[in-house]
Formats: sequence, C-alpha cells, structure tokens
Amino acid sequence: MNQQQYPILQGIQSPSDLKRLPESQLPALCAELRHYIIEQTATNPGHLGSSLGTIELTVAIHYVFDTPDDKLVWDVGHQAYAHKILTGRKDDFVNNRKLNGISGFPRMSESVYDAFGVGHSSTSISAVLGMATAADLSGNISRHHIAVIGDGSMTGGEAFEGLNHTGNTNANVLVILNDNGMAIDKNVGALHNYLTAITTSDSYNRIKNKIWNIFTRNNNSAKRGRNLIQSAQKAIKGGILKNSNMFAALGFRYFGPVDGHDVLFMVKVLKGLKNIQGAKLLHCVTVKGKGLKQAEEEQTLYHAPGMFDASTGKILQPPITPDIVEKYQKVFGTTLVELAGQNEKIVGVTPAMASGCSMDIMMKYYPKRVFDVGIAEQHAVTFSAGMATDGYIPFCNIYSTFLQRAYDQIIHDVALQKLHVIFCIDRAGLVGEDGATHHGNFDMAYLRCIPNMIVAAPSNELELRNMMFTAVHTSMPFAIRYPRGKGAGYGWKNEPFSLVPVGKGKCIKQGEKIAVLGIGHITNDIIKAGEILSGQGIEIGIYNMLFVKPLDTETIDEVCARYQIVVTVENGCKTGGFGSAVAEYMCRKNYARHLHIMGIPDEFIEQGTINQLQELCHIDVDSIVSTVKTLYRE
Amino acid sequence: MNQQQYPILQGIQSPSDLKRLPESQLPALCAELRHYIIEQTATNPGHLGSSLGTIELTVAIHYVFDTPDDKLVWDVGHQAYAHKILTGRKDDFVNNRKLNGISGFPRMSESVYDAFGVGHSSTSISAVLGMATAADLSGNISRHHIAVIGDGSMTGGEAFEGLNHTGNTNANVLVILNDNGMAIDKNVGALHNYLTAITTSDSYNRIKNKIWNIFTRNNNSAKRGRNLIQSAQKAIKGGILKNSNMFAALGFRYFGPVDGHDVLFMVKVLKGLKNIQGAKLLHCVTVKGKGLKQAEEEQTLYHAPGMFDASTGKILQPPITPDIVEKYQKVFGTTLVELAGQNEKIVGVTPAMASGCSMDIMMKYYPKRVFDVGIAEQHAVTFSAGMATDGYIPFCNIYSTFLQRAYDQIIHDVALQKLHVIFCIDRAGLVGEDGATHHGNFDMAYLRCIPNMIVAAPSNELELRNMMFTAVHTSMPFAIRYPRGKGAGYGWKNEPFSLVPVGKGKCIKQGEKIAVLGIGHITNDIIKAGEILSGQGIEIGIYNMLFVKPLDTETIDEVCARYQIVVTVENGCKTGGFGSAVAEYMCRKNYARHLHIMGIPDEFIEQGTINQLQELCHIDVDSIVSTVKTLYRE
Repeated sequence: MNQQQYPILQGIQSPSDLKRLPESQLPALCAELRHYIIEQTATNPGHLGSSLGTIELTVAIHYVFDTPDDKLVWDVGHQAYAHKILTGRKDDFVNNRKLNGISGFPRMSESVYDAFGVGHSSTSISAVLGMATAADLSGNISRHHIAVIGDGSMTGGEAFEGLNHTGNTNANVLVILNDNGMAIDKNVGALHNYLTAITTSDSYNRIKNKIWNIFTRNNNSAKRGRNLIQSAQKAIKGGILKNSNMFAALGFRYFGPVDGHDVLFMVKVLKGLKNIQGAKLLHCVTVKGKGLKQAEEEQTLYHAPGMFDASTGKILQPPITPDIVEKYQKVFGTTLVELAGQNEKIVGVTPAMASGCSMDIMMKYYPKRVFDVGIAEQHAVTFSAGMATDGYIPFCNIYSTFLQRAYDQIIHDVALQKLHVIFCIDRAGLVGEDGATHHGNFDMAYLRCIPNMIVAAPSNELELRNMMFTAVHTSMPFAIRYPRGKGAGYGWKNEPFSLVPVGKGKCIKQGEKIAVLGIGHITNDIIKAGEILSGQGIEIGIYNMLFVKPLDTETIDEVCARYQIVVTVENGCKTGGFGSAVAEYMCRKNYARHLHIMGIPDEFIEQGTINQLQELCHIDVDSIVSTVKTLYRE
Repeated sequence: MNQQQYPILQGIQSPSDLKRLPESQLPALCAELRHYIIEQTATNPGHLGSSLGTIELTVAIHYVFDTPDDKLVWDVGHQAYAHKILTGRKDDFVNNRKLNGISGFPRMSESVYDAFGVGHSSTSISAVLGMATAADLSGNISRHHIAVIGDGSMTGGEAFEGLNHTGNTNANVLVILNDNGMAIDKNVGALHNYLTAITTSDSYNRIKNKIWNIFTRNNNSAKRGRNLIQSAQKAIKGGILKNSNMFAALGFRYFGPVDGHDVLFMVKVLKGLKNIQGAKLLHCVTVKGKGLKQAEEEQTLYHAPGMFDASTGKILQPPITPDIVEKYQKVFGTTLVELAGQNEKIVGVTPAMASGCSMDIMMKYYPKRVFDVGIAEQHAVTFSAGMATDGYIPFCNIYSTFLQRAYDQIIHDVALQKLHVIFCIDRAGLVGEDGATHHGNFDMAYLRCIPNMIVAAPSNELELRNMMFTAVHTSMPFAIRYPRGKGAGYGWKNEPFSLVPVGKGKCIKQGEKIAVLGIGHITNDIIKAGEILSGQGIEIGIYNMLFVKPLDTETIDEVCARYQIVVTVENGCKTGGFGSAVAEYMCRKNYARHLHIMGIPDEFIEQGTINQLQELCHIDVDSIVSTVKTLYRE
C-alpha cells in the first residue's frame, strides 16, 4: 500500500486505530477507502458496486460500536470490503477471492470481526437475534448486535421471519436497512415501492432536517438524547411518516431515512441509537456504486464488473476473437426467447437474477411473460407451480446454491403434484471466486431423491438447447443443470430443435477395460483425458450420460457387460450424487465391477478459479488421466 | 349420512347446490356441517380445531364465488374439511385420512375444487398469485383467486415473499387472513401482537359497526357498492385503523377485522370484495375449535385430538396399561430437560411445534431457554446458528418434512461454519395419516451429502437419550432422526447417560450368508424378522448401524468379509439414502458382494396407518422376512 496515497488508511490495522481518529478525518478516510477499493477491484475483480455503497456506513459503525465485542453481521456480505480492509485485512485484500487468499464474503474462520459467515441473502437478522438472545441469557446487557441488510435482501422470506421474531423480544438488535433500491438488478416488489414512497415523500422531505436536528442535537447527554429521540420518534409516528409503521407494526422502533453517505451524520445517528435498548431499525439511503460515476449510472453492470480502468471506470473487455465460445447463460437466454416465440404458454421466472442468468434477453422480447420476483426463491418456485396449474410452462431459473432455499417447494409444490415446471439450474458445480457459500455442489444429490423429478445435465450448448426444448415437451418437473461460464464451443445457433430421449445417454467412444461415464459439461474433460490416454495407448470407453434421473440403466448394463472398471465423473458432490446413483444400480444388479466415483469431495471448497478448484478436487483432466492409468494397471 | 340429522347438507353434492339455498338457510347449514365434522372426527381422528374454525368462511366463499372456476387455495389445508364436504366428498369423508380414502389435505388429484395441494404452510399466496398471473396473461379478467391463510402461516417467510410480489401487481387476488391467534400452539411473534392490537383496539371497536354498515349496505348495486367501499376504506385509512396499513404498505387494500363466524355478514363482505379488482386482504377473526366447548378452551389439545366423545367433547384416552411404551417424543422432551439441567448452555428452539415434539416439557422447567419462533423453519435454524456462535448449544427440533424448508440454512449457516447445532428430526420416515405432504422420507438423502454433518438414527429410547447426550459432547452439527410415535419399549428412564461412539454401529447378532443392516427404529423390525427366520432355520446377521454419516465403514468391512449378501433396511427413501451410502462404500472398496437396499420406493406415498404404509413400501417385518428368504435361496 502506497503510504502517500493512503495517509490515514495505512495507519489502520484494526477498528481501535480507527477509533483514535478525530471525527473530522472520517470523510478523508472514506475517500481513501473508496480509492483503495476501486484501485484493487480494477485489477482483481470483485463485488464493486455494493462495497462502494457502504463505505461511510462501515466507517461509522466501526467508529461508534465496539467490534468485535459488539456483533456486526453483513447480510449477503458482498458489501463488506471496507469492513475487511478496516479489520486487519488491508494488505490481504490484494488476494481477495483468490485461491488461498481471503474470501469475498465475511467468514468466521477468517476474522473475529466476521461475526457470522454470509453469502446467501436474508440471514443476518436471524443470526444477530441468536447472538442477542445469547447475550441476554448470559446477562450481558451492554452488547450491541447489528445486522446490515439491503432492501433487496429484505424481500427474502427469512428476513421477515427474523423481523417477526425480533420484534416480539427485548433483544438489543439494530437492523440497518441499506436501501439502495437494488438487488443485483433493480429491486422489485411492494416493499421496494413502500420504501421509495417513504424516501420520496414530500412531507418527509419538508421536515426531515427538523426531525433529525432534534434527533442528533445534544447527543452527549445520554438521557437527554433518549428523550429527544423519543420525541422525534413520536413526531415521526404521529403523522409525518405514517407509512413508517410497517416496521413499527413488527415491533421495531423505526428511524430514518437518513443519508448513508454522510459519515459524520451517520456517526451521530449511531451514537444516538446506541442508547436505545430493544429492536431498532435504521433506514439508511445509499447509492450502489457511490463515487464511481459509471458504477452509479449502470448499477447492475458494475455489481461485479470484472476488470476495469481505475481512473476512467471503463470496463476492460476481453479481446474479441472470431471463434469466441459463448456462455451457457447466453445459450439459455437466447433459446428461451426462441421457445417463447413458438409457444405462448412459456413464461420465465427469476428470483432477482435476470441479468446473471440472461433471462433479461426474454425480458426485452416478452416483458409481460418474465417475472422477476425479487430475492425470494421459495416464492419463485410455488409461484411457478401456481402458473403451471393453469397450463403455463414456467422456466424457473435459479442458481444451484440458491435453489437450496426452495427445496421444500420443489418437493411439496412441484414434484408431488407432478407440475410441469422447468428448473434451469445455473451455476451448477464449482463456481470459482465466490467460494464456499456459492458452489452448486449439492443439487444432483438433493434432487435425485425426489420422486417424479427429471434431472438432466447437458454437456454442451446444443444439448442445453435441445434439453430445454425437450423439457417443454415433457409434462413433468424437469431440472436442467449447467455450469457458470463458457460452453464447449459447440455450434448451436440456428440449429433446428430436436428432442432428447429422456433418460438416455450417449456413447462417445468405445474402448477397453475402463469406461468413464460423464454427466454434464465435465464430459468434455473426459473426452480430453481420453485423447491424452489414447496417445499413451489406453483406449477408454466414454459415455455422456445426460441424465442423473431417470438413470440410463440400459447403458450401464452395456457398460458392465463390456468393461471391467467403471469410472464416473461429476462436477458435484461425490456423496449422494450421480456416481452414487450408478453405485445403487450396479449393486441392485449385482454387477461385480469396480466402480470408481470421481467428484467433489465431502468438504466445503473455498474460492479460486474454477480450473484451480477442479484440480484441487481432482476432477480436472490430469486427475482423470492419472486415475484411469492407476485403475488400468490394477 | 342420516337425512334427518342433515336435512340441508344431505342435498348438497357440490357448491352449485349450495348456491341455490336462500341466504337464510346458511346458518343452519353451518350448524349441520359443524355437527357432521364433530361426529366424524370423533371416531375417525383428524384436524378438528382448525376445521371447526372455518365453517362459516367456507360456506360464504363457496356461496359467493364460483368455484372451481374461481380458484380457492387453503393454506396448510388442515382447515378444509367443510370445503371437502361441500365439494362432493361428503360421503367419502368417513374415509378421511385412511388408506385409499381421501386425503386430510386438499389435493389437486382428488378434486377440481382443490386448486392447489397443500400440507406445509405459507404457500397459498404464491400459488394463487401464480394462478392470477396466468389468468391475466390469458386475458381472463373475471376470475377470482382466493388464498385463505392463518395468522400462524402468515409468519412463514414464503407468505411474506408472496405478499411482497402480489402487492406489486394488479393481480386479482383476495387473501383472507384467518386470524385465530393460533398456530398449533399459541401463535407468537410481532405480527401476532400487531393483529391482536388491531382486533382489540378501542377506537376500532367503537366504530367498527358504523364502518361495516357503510361497507355492506346496498351491495346490490355494484357501482354504488364500490363507492361505498372506497369511502369506507378511506375512513379506515384516515385514522380509525392506522395500524392496518402494514398490509397497505405492501400494496394490499386492507379490510377488516370482521367476525368470521357470522356467515351472513361474511357473505355480504365477500360480495362487496368481489367487485374490487387487485390485491385485497380481508382480516377475519375466528375461534379455533368454534362450537365445541372443550376445543375452544384447549385449542392446542383439540388441534388433532384423536378420538373423542362427540356428545360431550371429552377425549377418549387409550386404556392405560402398566407396561405402556412411551413415545420418542416423550423421551426427547424429558431427556432435553435433564440435559438442560446439567448444562446451562443448552437451549431449545422450535418452529411452532413445542407440544408436538414435546419441547413444551422444557418450557415448563426452563421457560427462558426455550424459543418458539413461530412457523419459520429457516429462521429457526439460522437463529440457532447465531446462538451457537456464542457458545450456546441449541437443540433445534423440526419435523423431517418441515426441515426441508431450512435446507439452505443447514448447509450455509450451520454446516459450513461447523456450528454446534443439534437437529432433532422428529417424524422421520412414514408418518401415517397425514400422508404424502408430511412423510419424512428424504432427510437421510438430503443431509448425508452435506459436509461436516453427523447424521444419526437411534433404534430405541435409550439410544435416543444417549445420542442426545453424545451430541452435546460433540462440537459439530449433529442431526438425530427418529419416527413419530412409540419407541421400542426399551427401558430408558433414570439410566445414567453414556456416550455413543460417533460413526460406530453395533452387531446385534451374527449369522451366516446374509447380513441385514438397519438404521434407526426399523432395526426392531429386522430383529423381529430375524426371530421369524431363525424359527425357519435361517440365521441372519443383524447390525444396528446408528449413523448414516459418518458411516461405520469398519463394520461394513467386517460384514463384507463374513457375509455374501448385504441387505440394508431404512424408513426413508431408497434413492440416495442410507443404503445408497453403503452402496457407495462397497463400490469404493470393490467388494464383490450383493447389496440389496430396502426402503421407501421412489414415489410419493399417500396416507394410511404407519403399519399399512410400511407394508405397502415393503419395509415391514413380513417383507424383510420374504426378501431375506428369496435372497437366501439365490
């Protein structure tokens, strides 16, 4: 870290250093933090927009509260870069999201300042209430418990469950609602409209200064401060912000909205709130991407922009080559539009991931037939089921890791009723830099035990395209999993659709002694491994199995008849996944064949590039080659 | 059905018959329905309390709306007996919840009047919004979509997700909040307090008649009705029911509260609401158990009271025998109190199932250390995780089927962080009469793929007790599954605690050729089968495996060394469950042994007694005997 560029920041090893600064230096510190985050994420990509939006809030919280004794939980956690930098990870930040570096999200194992690990949304209120309840039981009445949660995360049902419980307790909980009007895409839903109505209310704007002057004046005297706060609160409740009592209805004292970028004001407000026991909600208005012009203007794009020019803010595009391989996401998005054009019953449902999964393409063509339901996976699935009862065919696209949130709804609302909902499971398998909270490792295991489900995994672009087509023509719950990122470079555009036989795999090549069965995109790595092995005189059989369920038992019968050793390879957990399904079947048929299952080991995998992690998990090309060679020599 | 007893009801084959009645006969019909439900459930147990509470509401809805064209979804669905009786299932009702009879919950496959299958809570708003959106896309603007949801179900996060989306649309949705202040136990949480505040508000009670007089007068003229309704609404918003705008904040027009037992008034109100487009919420106050004195007074007990005397309402206790076998639930509840007495860090967490799981015992002894968080499984798990970060040891008791709701939280908040949360998974395996929505068949499959988890299944009372003790002394996420109902009759009281070696099973008896590996309570059936087989000259080996994860691989090594055939038996899904774990291991070790997996087949299982269903699934004693005999002869 350049000392001249960061005169204040370089001296801060922990929040105790921050606390020694005079208040007057805080704005300058915020500027340094902003500069440092921009500088670093420009070359080492990460979650830029959210973290730029919470800088002042982070500084104010650590300045006023006594972390790590006071407990601070960041909902989702992609806004916590300033928090990481201020809590001893300033220098490590250059390795943010890298293999063996620090996680892009708060992690308990990484720092005592990370009171709770996060990554998925809407957990923070429940977690801090747990901590506050623990403090209460232990007789610790002075500890503070702070959850910082975005308005996007607030739409997730668990946040409401947490509010509902908290508001019925005396727990010392401060919920800071970081309202920037955004999820990753623009936030949606009635709550969003409500918050907007508050912050744009004429009557509010006329008198907010007056109210907050009362609120923040004389806060040196705790008792007087409390009285003033109470009168301010009464005034708010009494008529100025009638709407604000949605949170009041849930037992919270509501404060706000306040400008979350005015660090000195935030310090005053937080000092005031420190003196108020019980459940409090501070509604704080911020701008996602604050301080970088482009990021403020194009908030979805700059949520995680990849590499960009730190001085101009301009995103650096990878060089365009004529044979560029397209992402599965693009294939999904484009194919969906085509299918929707053929069948007006097809609709799209996404829980706040329209741009991430490329459903935004269909939004442009058929805006009325795409539903961004907000961060609300459970609702997304049951809502899809509801549409399916009426003959619509919803493509419900949810990342593998987030689909865990809707597990019960898949079972209870879709599979049990055999409703024709098509789950497109994006980000299946290892996702790379987002790390342990985000890998989509479990879906094959947790879906294949559900009756009536079809679970498919295409190995290339054309197969994804045809699998989507097949799913439309198969009136059953149908899940299609595919990974984040680039396809196999397989021509798919303008190909006529063709049906994939459900439950039927393909033989890629015959061989001897060893057959390797692949499921999904990783089959391409088996093919590569097969070429290397072929060069070394070992000809393996290769099968692209395509379906986890129904399992292609005919092919397995053939394989067991022909080969002595069966190897399965999957980009998913070894325990209970595709290989496990093959093991069940081979045991059932009493095949005396050696089965070797390759997949993600039974542990949580940290961050790194996808290639690094595949290597780490021994499911890369080299691992397939060496495993086959070892087995071959047996 | 006795025609004299049910002069009106006997003439109603469908809602169109109901519609032909003059309004004046509706109160008498309600009385007949109430009598019939009491009469039937007295001898054929079911969900009494909830269904008694919704009789007038049901009659009014079917009288006013045009089901099945209009869509009606009952949240949870245990309150839908009157609905079933009025929609062609009056005579079938004698087979309610029985094998091959009708389901205790609405099911799409059973009747066109069951617009959506239910059983788990909080799905109704999402489902009707899906239907309303479908209608909107199809240009059907006249169809109505009604969700009836209790105040207990309203605490589930998915309900909030549904409200948040609905309030942002123009969908023609009527949410009827059936507010009886109860989940199964008394409802808790801030929302409950808020609803109570509305219904007990002085200012409200002073003028409610006035308001509702305006509202319901002259409803023959649709236009005039609308105007009146609008002025009533303004009046409500303007000051009388300021609090009511919690739902208004979420984009709903709020109406109420109204007396849900005044059927004629309900008819008027619903006729009025029929003329209002968009998202509406009618807050309806009812009494759970209405019309049966004891059920009104002891609402939790009479939620599902078992057999009772229809004339006196008195519950018929099963005959007390000196050697009565106690339920696992009692063992759990009693042991928890003992453990809590030894260790003040132990706390209990339940999502609205305190009496069902017997955590109510600890509530009496340590009221401050038990947390009923409402119907909110996701929150229950993350809240437990939050407490665990501070050194507390939460026993989080959730039924297997409902734990599906918290799947992501188990992975993301507990297992990933290796937090010491103990999951006691009640109602694991087949649950009997509650049927397809409630069987706990999937937990072994969906939990064993999660890294860091310990998944155990005791086979008797003493093992449950010691497993709970062991879990306290094992600082890892620890799940203990056990079934609904009676234990194995194993002495457990006053036994000193002893540690169970984690990941270690027990040999019950050695045998020859065939070893049968049991997991959990079903091991007792293997022992019984073993006795029968022994009488026929077949001596099988029997193993009580105790842990699904970590799997006792040493024992499997021994078994495979000693026996030619391995059979696994589990009260859980065959696909991906315990047998699958054994299959994976045997394949990994290349054991050329025949493995036969017995478990619940890959389909949804309907209702029946547990014994009937075990037979149906071929996991009863006789099936074990015959399977072993067939294998023995191979």
